[in-house]
Amino acid sequence: MDASTKKEALRLFTYGLYAVTCGDERERTAFTANWLSQVSFDPPLVVVSVENTSHSLPLIRRTGRFAVNIFAADERDLSGRLGKGYEKHPEKLDGIRFGSAEGGCPVLADAPAWVVCQVTGELPAGDSTLVLGHVMDARVNRRVEPLTMLAAGFKHAG
Amino acid sequence: MDASTKKEALRLFTYGLYAVTCGDERERTAFTANWLSQVSFDPPLVVVSVENTSHSLPLIRRTGRFAVNIFAADERDLSGRLGKGYEKHPEKLDGIRFGSAEGGCPVLADAPAWVVCQVTGELPAGDSTLVLGHVMDARVNRRVEPLTMLAAGFKHAG
Repeated sequence: MDASTKKEALRLFTYGLYAVTCGDERERTAFTANWLSQVSFDPPLVVVSVENTSHSLPLIRRTGRFAVNIFAADERDLSGRLGKGYEKHPEKLDGIRFGSAEGGCPVLADAPAWVVCQVTGELPAGDSTLVLGHVMDARVNRRVEPLTMLAAGFKHAG
Repeated sequence: MDASTKKEALRLFTYGLYAVTCGDERERTAFTANWLSQVSFDPPLVVVSVENTSHSLPLIRRTGRFAVNIFAADERDLSGRLGKGYEKHPEKLDGIRFGSAEGGCPVLADAPAWVVCQVTGELPAGDSTLVLGHVMDARVNRRVEPLTMLAAGFKHAG
């Protein structure tokens, strides 16, 4: 397989951009994710691909919860900032206002909308882990056009 | 949880639209999927959520292969047609030109681009099953703007 063709084909996939939040009263964090999808209606389930070396994966495992926060179309800068690795850029969380949802799961207080999920399973997936979660709670704070990978001009595929 | 809020939040997720093809020389089929994402760079892995009651899931399991075909922005009608259930609408495949890729996996001969995956795992996910596949082959036949759920005006979330 030609590696550049593989990249070119995979970059035709369409993605949104989301802030995934996790943690508890002791520690909380947020990272930008695009490899994420609803995957079942009944029950409502969401899957997110989380890097194995991430700061978040152990937190999600410990708490059994994560939240998916929508970015508004004008939050490209915030999505880029939260996309930095926490280990090298712990300052990325400075000034971020967290709220707390179902089961103590952190959410972005200023997000236009979020869903909170209880982890129901996981599957190893190469350099990442698929974390499957049951939607337990949801909020829509304001109606917005959501940010997409295409609009942001980011590349995270291939 | 308010069911309408849950639906409204989940409908803010962004999706592409793809024709997933599967089968072998005896039988082949195609269905329209949006709950689909790349999930790993190294190795390159793709996950697709496949309905448990679908015609395709047993075929994917038997052959261990599936392909993800990109729809071009002007292929809304084709994506709607392939989104019908095969059991009730076997005629949806009439006139579809299939090609054959790596390991005999069917692809859409007229698709602008596709990737072919070898199944490496699965995870039960409510009314669906997550099928994880390793990208084995890819083709870009022509450069197009890909069709998205938003542009198509379809709803499949919530």
